[in-house]
Amino acid sequence: MTKDKKNKPSKELPLGFVDRQEKELLVRDFIISNIKKIMIKYGFQYLETPSFEYTDSIGKFLPDKDRPDEGVFSFQDEKKWLSLRYDLTAPLARYIAKNYLEIPKPFKRYQLGTVWRNEKPGPGRFREFLQFDADFVGTKSLQADAELCVMISEILENCGLNKEEYIIKISSRKITEEIFKKIKIDNIEQKLTVLRALDKIDRLGWDSVKKLLGEGRKDKSGDFTKGANLSSKNINFLEKELKNKSPETEDLKEILKIFSDYNFNNFEVDPSVIRGLEYYTGPIFEVNLKFDVKNNKGQVIQFGSIGGGGRYDNLVSNFGNYDAPATGISIGLDRLVYALLQKKELKVKQTKPIVICILDKNLMKEYISLQMILRSAGISTEIYPGEGKLKKQMEYANKIKSPAVILYGENEIKTSKPTLRDLVSGNEKSITIKELANEIKKII
Amino acid sequence: MTKDKKNKPSKELPLGFVDRQEKELLVRDFIISNIKKIMIKYGFQYLETPSFEYTDSIGKFLPDKDRPDEGVFSFQDEKKWLSLRYDLTAPLARYIAKNYLEIPKPFKRYQLGTVWRNEKPGPGRFREFLQFDADFVGTKSLQADAELCVMISEILENCGLNKEEYIIKISSRKITEEIFKKIKIDNIEQKLTVLRALDKIDRLGWDSVKKLLGEGRKDKSGDFTKGANLSSKNINFLEKELKNKSPETEDLKEILKIFSDYNFNNFEVDPSVIRGLEYYTGPIFEVNLKFDVKNNKGQVIQFGSIGGGGRYDNLVSNFGNYDAPATGISIGLDRLVYALLQKKELKVKQTKPIVICILDKNLMKEYISLQMILRSAGISTEIYPGEGKLKKQMEYANKIKSPAVILYGENEIKTSKPTLRDLVSGNEKSITIKELANEIKKII
Repeated sequence: MTKDKKNKPSKELPLGFVDRQEKELLVRDFIISNIKKIMIKYGFQYLETPSFEYTDSIGKFLPDKDRPDEGVFSFQDEKKWLSLRYDLTAPLARYIAKNYLEIPKPFKRYQLGTVWRNEKPGPGRFREFLQFDADFVGTKSLQADAELCVMISEILENCGLNKEEYIIKISSRKITEEIFKKIKIDNIEQKLTVLRALDKIDRLGWDSVKKLLGEGRKDKSGDFTKGANLSSKNINFLEKELKNKSPETEDLKEILKIFSDYNFNNFEVDPSVIRGLEYYTGPIFEVNLKFDVKNNKGQVIQFGSIGGGGRYDNLVSNFGNYDAPATGISIGLDRLVYALLQKKELKVKQTKPIVICILDKNLMKEYISLQMILRSAGISTEIYPGEGKLKKQMEYANKIKSPAVILYGENEIKTSKPTLRDLVSGNEKSITIKELANEIKKII
Repeated sequence: MTKDKKNKPSKELPLGFVDRQEKELLVRDFIISNIKKIMIKYGFQYLETPSFEYTDSIGKFLPDKDRPDEGVFSFQDEKKWLSLRYDLTAPLARYIAKNYLEIPKPFKRYQLGTVWRNEKPGPGRFREFLQFDADFVGTKSLQADAELCVMISEILENCGLNKEEYIIKISSRKITEEIFKKIKIDNIEQKLTVLRALDKIDRLGWDSVKKLLGEGRKDKSGDFTKGANLSSKNINFLEKELKNKSPETEDLKEILKIFSDYNFNNFEVDPSVIRGLEYYTGPIFEVNLKFDVKNNKGQVIQFGSIGGGGRYDNLVSNFGNYDAPATGISIGLDRLVYALLQKKELKVKQTKPIVICILDKNLMKEYISLQMILRSAGISTEIYPGEGKLKKQMEYANKIKSPAVILYGENEIKTSKPTLRDLVSGNEKSITIKELANEIKKII
């Protein structure tokens, strides 16, 4: 083990990475299991691609250009570069290209997986995310786009949210494309700089974004981000257009009609929704929570969206002659769980074991037998796993929030009646082994 | 997107990484859900550490020294090095050190997670694995080690294996330590070279391993691995000792006694079991399947173990003054799933949707309504997601193995009776909307 100058390795985590505890993980499992059921109901197929891809396969569509490697963790391997995926969409496009002849067309798949972004470390900026994605590949039908929005609503309501607690915002890249035509921007790099700036409206507000659309902006740390160099006339035009809540693009009109066929109305058309990724070509959606989310200091924070997506008709065709117009949605599960944990009604059950105390090491066989009886009855049980005396054992049981301990010493063994001590009420009861499981079930 | 000389990105995966399909993923989910239930029953706590750690925190305990970075994927970040975890044990040690004051002692946790090994790419050598781990930290009690073996058996039997289909092999690092004393090896590097060589008995056989214990060995690719430079007398002594199935170390004797208290007998003492990782200090275990596993060409392969573990009393104390003797077990879920998929009795249900054909785009509202009715009844349903004519729609339904399609055109709508075509029998039936869900349930 490499050690630092004090001869001890670091016990800290790198910035942007966290340890996750039981409660959060159980809520996440609950959500994942709900999502999987809904995926089956909607007819999506389960797929998993690996963490690594060839760097050239997944490209660089990230909005964050702060870092030299543009947000992707990459390695050189034999002669080629490998990257950790930064989303689940670019690997899907690679998968489609690789398996184009075999897959059904259209192809509907869902995937759960970790993605990584090598962002500039900073408070609240994570570099590892668990995502859930669902995509339709090989269809231009806007029924697909609409269904993704309906589906994500069903997922959120299944997680316990009501219609007042979330909203799906929709927009279309066709809106910005039309604006670009009107203000005569056709340079791709400049377009991307504009889109990246607009994607920050939520986080920075219009004033800062207008600087990014113009000459550029210095952030709090003093770092300067170059702007898109639009004229102030064009910036004002852009702002006016994106604040218009009734845009007239064909794709949005059609989606609105499908929403009405679904009786789905928990959405809002908002042209200021941009989504950072470069590959979108049509409708885009964003999932926003409408209840207050607080940080660990209890302050309400600007939480932003928990996910979104959109149509990307050209991503797969980049690999060659594969005609695969597509649309997809992505949910950030860590963010969703973080918000849901603040809703009281979503407390999940954390089962803690009954602790069988070791009163006499020579009686271990009896303890093992009791443990087997209780576990067979489906009760979480453990023999105290350490070597401490009874006082330490009780401290341990309290620390892990065990509901009860079992005391079974020489005296109790004579009558085959262990003592059950309820750690919540403090009550003790002498119980036959036969009745033990039933008694425990009453108090857990 | 970076493109190669043909101007197209690669659609292939880097060596050692794979796409995983629905059936495999469903079996894996089934196993994971079983494991989680057993973890709760045994009183383990759910924890998740991130993919990345500071390189110096997780050290380099890997057996594979073939690559310059010794099997770990690492990045330089701000001034420090980060690595993708190569197991879940080293990160646990870091977690314990970081949270030493807060955690219960002993501390029992389980974790599921991907680990990465930057192995030399080659056929059948993966570089990404999904692992399940359970550990006891802060106890010297061999009850813990024994319980891990009992628990892993319960997991395997829960997965549908019977006692004839698997075995837990146990050994102890104390056996090799005693041998080292007898043959007077005290150089740590030399000891590790010996252990790494012995760990390959399963894969290479004794003849090759004896070369690795001596001067070294050239593998098939022509690469030469330096040996441990033992004398042939010592090599023969080592072989004899490791073939003795009744070693007399104190720890193994105690574990055998506990096994008998558990009525657990599906184990075998085998001193030739070494486990590659450097950090083990006491009992070690290995989980082996006893049924034939075949490769995709139908040939029976040397499958090796699906997991194992052991006691590591010093790993946590490397971080400072933390006294945390520990023991743990780890299961390679991909390997377990691969083997289980070859057992016929483990076929999981892959639900495929009923396809509502689009006979007339103007009737989309009716299709959406039918779809909602069926989904509400819990039936996996989709409106054909593409834009093809009926023939294409039927091809699609057959391709995805849909159990049935619904035909609902102008005529059917007049009588409100959709036609249900069973794609297995070929039968067609005209059914009222009210009866549709019940009729479908009869054939799925």
